[in-house]
Amino acid sequence: MNDRSTTITELKKIVKDFVEERDWSQFHNAKNLSMALTIEAGELMDIFKWNTTQECDSMMSEKKTRQDATDELADIMIYALAFSNRNNINISRAIEKKMIKNRKKYPTEKFKGHF
Amino acid sequence: MNDRSTTITELKKIVKDFVEERDWSQFHNAKNLSMALTIEAGELMDIFKWNTTQECDSMMSEKKTRQDATDELADIMIYALAFSNRNNINISRAIEKKMIKNRKKYPTEKFKGHF
Amino acid sequence: MNDRSTTITELKKIVKDFVEERDWSQFHNAKNLSMALTIEAGELMDIFKWNTTQECDSMMSEKKTRQDATDELADIMIYALAFSNRNNINISRAIEKKMIKNRKKYPTEKFKGHF
Amino acid sequence: MNDRSTTITELKKIVKDFVEERDWSQFHNAKNLSMALTIEAGELMDIFKWNTTQECDSMMSEKKTRQDATDELADIMIYALAFSNRNNINISRAIEKKMIKNRKKYPTEKFKGHF
Repeated sequence: MNDRSTTITELKKIVKDFVEERDWSQFHNAKNLSMALTIEAGELMDIFKWNTTQECDSMMSEKKTRQDATDELADIMIYALAFSNRNNINISRAIEKKMIKNRKKYPTEKFKGHF
Repeated sequence: MNDRSTTITELKKIVKDFVEERDWSQFHNAKNLSMALTIEAGELMDIFKWNTTQECDSMMSEKKTRQDATDELADIMIYALAFSNRNNINISRAIEKKMIKNRKKYPTEKFKGHF
Repeated sequence: MNDRSTTITELKKIVKDFVEERDWSQFHNAKNLSMALTIEAGELMDIFKWNTTQECDSMMSEKKTRQDATDELADIMIYALAFSNRNNINISRAIEKKMIKNRKKYPTEKFKGHF
Repeated sequence: MNDRSTTITELKKIVKDFVEERDWSQFHNAKNLSMALTIEAGELMDIFKWNTTQECDSMMSEKKTRQDATDELADIMIYALAFSNRNNINISRAIEKKMIKNRKKYPTEKFKGHF
């Protein structure tokens, strides 16, 4: 699969089928999934916790670290998709709308190069 | 925008442009982005922390909670896309590969209805 | 050791000695320790993520779960003590002051039994 | 209050009284408290997310940042104490036991100056 041709709906379907085949929707309420998402994000951080910001970037060129981080990112995405499946959230529109808010909150002329 | 027709590459581009316009790539190393991801996931949890799992599901039908949760999910997605942009991660393939591992780890016949 | 007679300074010293013996203070800047704290808190959550709030309470009576949760709580405390050591924070006074703010923010007559 | 003379039991009592006065023990199951702990840890991280590890240390000398971080650390401690209250955990002994495991896992001669 490739990002250039894969839609969000296709990714949602992969996660939906996996959950249904195991009858796991009973565990997938909003509270539990928000926990699962945070736990996976914590596991991604765990890779980088003792290194400087510069070291972390070069670590991403090492095969093992890169694979571990990619797997953790996939886990985060999988739970984000599961959360959207459960709650009928249109992810693309949610991002589109949030970016409009972000552009208002952080106008280019004021936030260029800093926060 | 709609999940049915929106590709991951299109969403990546929206985030990439936003970051470049503000010259924020200097902050977007792997370490910082993994922190930002976890913080946003924590904010999603914050909505649900004092309620039972059942209450949380019905809360997602209330307009205000639903909007807040959708915005937090968008933030999580935006940082996941930013992490992928920075590190040239093919998200669709990452999910595809991780799901193969997950299917091996959790075979249907053994994990149906429980963990 | 016993909570009735153990002071915060005594606990701080245990962590300080452990860190110094390994020459790990070079890793213990505020950023890294805040990450370590969150990761450990995520590991505590991991024990409870798929269970209802009621189930989680009774899980804490099972020996294995109780031991795992106690170890994770200890890890959280160890990093909170390490953060205080590094930044010369008087934990007792910090809690005392924060509780004054909390009492103002959540007056008993208004928040009894709900949020 | 001062870390040199304050015991864990004294701190536990402050949190216990606060919770009882508001009849909040109904919300303080193990699952909810593990979420609250992680959320607060995320708020501590939020202070440091876009800065280098070096910058974060010097930020802790600025009055405002130092106060914010101290408040967040207090919140983490308050929920760790609440978790211990709810589940009858002897924190001092938990730390003592965990440090024995840590010393075995990370012997000084092998881990001096690195991980």
